[in-house]
Amino acid sequence: MKIAVLGDGAWGSALANLLVANGHDVRLWGPFPDYVDEMRRTRLNPRFLPQLHFSERIVFLADLREAVEQAELIVLSLPTKYARPLLEKLRGVVPPGAILVNIAKGLEEGTLKRMGELVAELVGETRYASLSGPSHAEEVATGTPTAVVAASLDKKAGMFVQQAFMNKYFRVYYCDDIVGVELGGAFKNVYAIAAGIIDGMGLGDNPKAALVARSLAELTRLGRALGGKAETFAGLSGLGDLIVTCYSRHSRNRSVGEQLGKGKSLEGILQGMGMVVAEGIVTVKSAHALSLREKIEAPIVHELYAALYSSKPPRECIKQLMERAAKPEVY
Amino acid sequence: MKIAVLGDGAWGSALANLLVANGHDVRLWGPFPDYVDEMRRTRLNPRFLPQLHFSERIVFLADLREAVEQAELIVLSLPTKYARPLLEKLRGVVPPGAILVNIAKGLEEGTLKRMGELVAELVGETRYASLSGPSHAEEVATGTPTAVVAASLDKKAGMFVQQAFMNKYFRVYYCDDIVGVELGGAFKNVYAIAAGIIDGMGLGDNPKAALVARSLAELTRLGRALGGKAETFAGLSGLGDLIVTCYSRHSRNRSVGEQLGKGKSLEGILQGMGMVVAEGIVTVKSAHALSLREKIEAPIVHELYAALYSSKPPRECIKQLMERAAKPEVY
Repeated sequence: MKIAVLGDGAWGSALANLLVANGHDVRLWGPFPDYVDEMRRTRLNPRFLPQLHFSERIVFLADLREAVEQAELIVLSLPTKYARPLLEKLRGVVPPGAILVNIAKGLEEGTLKRMGELVAELVGETRYASLSGPSHAEEVATGTPTAVVAASLDKKAGMFVQQAFMNKYFRVYYCDDIVGVELGGAFKNVYAIAAGIIDGMGLGDNPKAALVARSLAELTRLGRALGGKAETFAGLSGLGDLIVTCYSRHSRNRSVGEQLGKGKSLEGILQGMGMVVAEGIVTVKSAHALSLREKIEAPIVHELYAALYSSKPPRECIKQLMERAAKPEVY
Repeated sequence: MKIAVLGDGAWGSALANLLVANGHDVRLWGPFPDYVDEMRRTRLNPRFLPQLHFSERIVFLADLREAVEQAELIVLSLPTKYARPLLEKLRGVVPPGAILVNIAKGLEEGTLKRMGELVAELVGETRYASLSGPSHAEEVATGTPTAVVAASLDKKAGMFVQQAFMNKYFRVYYCDDIVGVELGGAFKNVYAIAAGIIDGMGLGDNPKAALVARSLAELTRLGRALGGKAETFAGLSGLGDLIVTCYSRHSRNRSVGEQLGKGKSLEGILQGMGMVVAEGIVTVKSAHALSLREKIEAPIVHELYAALYSSKPPRECIKQLMERAAKPEVY
C-alpha cells in the first residue's frame, strides 16, 4: 500500500519505519527542503529522533503534491500549531478514497479546534481517522511492544488503519470516538506538566498517583462536555497515554513540569528546548478557556494555568488543591 | 474521639500516628503480645515500618476487648488472611454505634469474600466503611500529601470517617460504593505484579502504560460483574491505587513481579519476603476463579495466573497478550 507521512518529527519518523517494516511503500515529507535532503542522504533525523536509522526503502520528498500522489493513507504528523497551513495545501490534492490519519496531539490555539475539526474545515469531506495511545516514538523505533487506538466514524476506515499499522509489537484497537481520542491526546499533555511539577518538587508517589487519578476525572469531565465518551478517556488514548506521559522519562511535557517544580521559569525552560515542541504548554490555555466556556470545574488546569502564566509558586498550587473543602469523589 | 487500630502492620501504624496528630485518643492492638511490648517500649515497628517513630500518645494493647472498649472508630488493618479469626473475636465486643473502618486490601482465599462481606458475616450488623486509595504507608508516615476515599452505604458514617482522618496532608473523599472500593483495592495488587514483570524484563514505558490501561479495563469488567461501579474503578481507590502500586518503588506486589520478570521462581521470592505479605499473590487466584465463575474475559489475570502457578515464562505471557486478534477497544 502507498502511504505518505507528512511531517518529520519523532513520531512520524518512527511510524514511517514501522510502516515500511509492515511491507508498505512509504514517502516521508518534511517542511524544510534542506533538512529533507539531509535525512535522505544520512538516513538520520538528528533534530527530532537521533537514535533512529531510517529504512533504505523510505522515499524522502519536499514536494507535498508528489508525496500524497496515489497514497491510500496519508499520515498527518505535524504539531498542531503547524497544521493549518499544511491542511490548506492538502485541499484538492488528497486522492479520492484516501484516508487521512492524524497522529498529532493538541488543539489549535485560539480556535480550540481538534485536528478532526481542522481537517473537516480545511480539507473538506474526507475519510479520517486518529491514531493515539501510549506510544513514545523512542520505544516504537526499537520495536518495544506498544498498544494504541485507531478512531474513526467510518468503521471500514478505522479497521483499514488498524490493519496497516498492526504487527507483532504494535497492537491497534479501533473505536468510533474521534472526539474522545483527540481530546484525551491533547489534554494528557496538560496533566503531564502537573505530574512533572510533583516530580520536580520531590513530593512522592502517593501525591503523584492521586494527581493522575484526579486528572483523569477532570479530563473526563471536560472531555464529556465536549462530546467525548467516558470509556474512551478510561482507555489507551486517554488513561494509557496520560500514564505514559506522566511517568516516562521520554516525556517532554513531564520534563517541562519537572523544571517548573525545581523553580525554573517558563521562559528559561522554553529557551532550553530549541525547536522541540511540548504541546501541553499551549494546550493548558485551551483547556483553561474550554473549562470556563463550558463551566466545568477543572481545579488542576486552573492551578497549572496560574503556575505557567501568572508565576504562581507550585507549592501554593498544591496547597490549594489539597485544602479544598471535603467532597464526594464523583460529582 | 477514642479510636482503636487493630493490627500493627505498616499501614495501621502510619494511620495510628496520623490519627493522634488529628487529636484523637488512639489504642493500637497487635496480635503478638511480645511484639506489642517491644513497640510500647521502643516506640518503633522494626518488622513492618522501620522508619516510623510512634507518637508517645499511642496506647499499645495486646487485649482486644480492652482495645475496642468505648471506641467510636475501630480500624481493621490486618491482612485479609488473618481477618476471619479477628472478626470472630470482635463479635459482641464492638461498642454500640461504633464504626468499623477497613483499611486492608484483599479477598479471602477460597470464599472470595470482600472484607465488607466478612464483617457482615462474622461481626453482624454494624456501621461499616472502607478507606482506600493510593497511600503507601512509608509516605503517609512522613506527611506526604495523600488523597483517599472513604466508602460507606451509611453516608453519615462515611462523612464521620472523612472528618476523623482528614487533615492538611491527608485528603479524604467519600462515596457509597463499598463493593467497588474493596474490589479495586484487592485487584490492583494482581495487576501490580504484572506491571512488575514488565519492569523486571526491562520492556519499556509504552508496554507498561498499555498494561496499566488495559488492567483498568479488565478490573472494571470484573468489578462491575460483581456489583461495583465503573466510576469508582476510575477513581482514587481503583485507578489511583493501581497506578501507585504499579509505579512506586514502595510496592511489594510490583516487586514480586519484578523478580518474576528477572527469572526468579515464586518459591524463591516468597522465601526472601519473610513475614511481609504481598496480597496480590493470593488475590490472583481469587480473580482467576471469579473471572471463570462470572465468565468475564480477563486475559491479563489468566496469563499472570499461568506465570505464577504454572511457571509459564513471562515472555510467553507478553507475546500471548500482544498477539491476540484485532479488536475494538471497548467490548
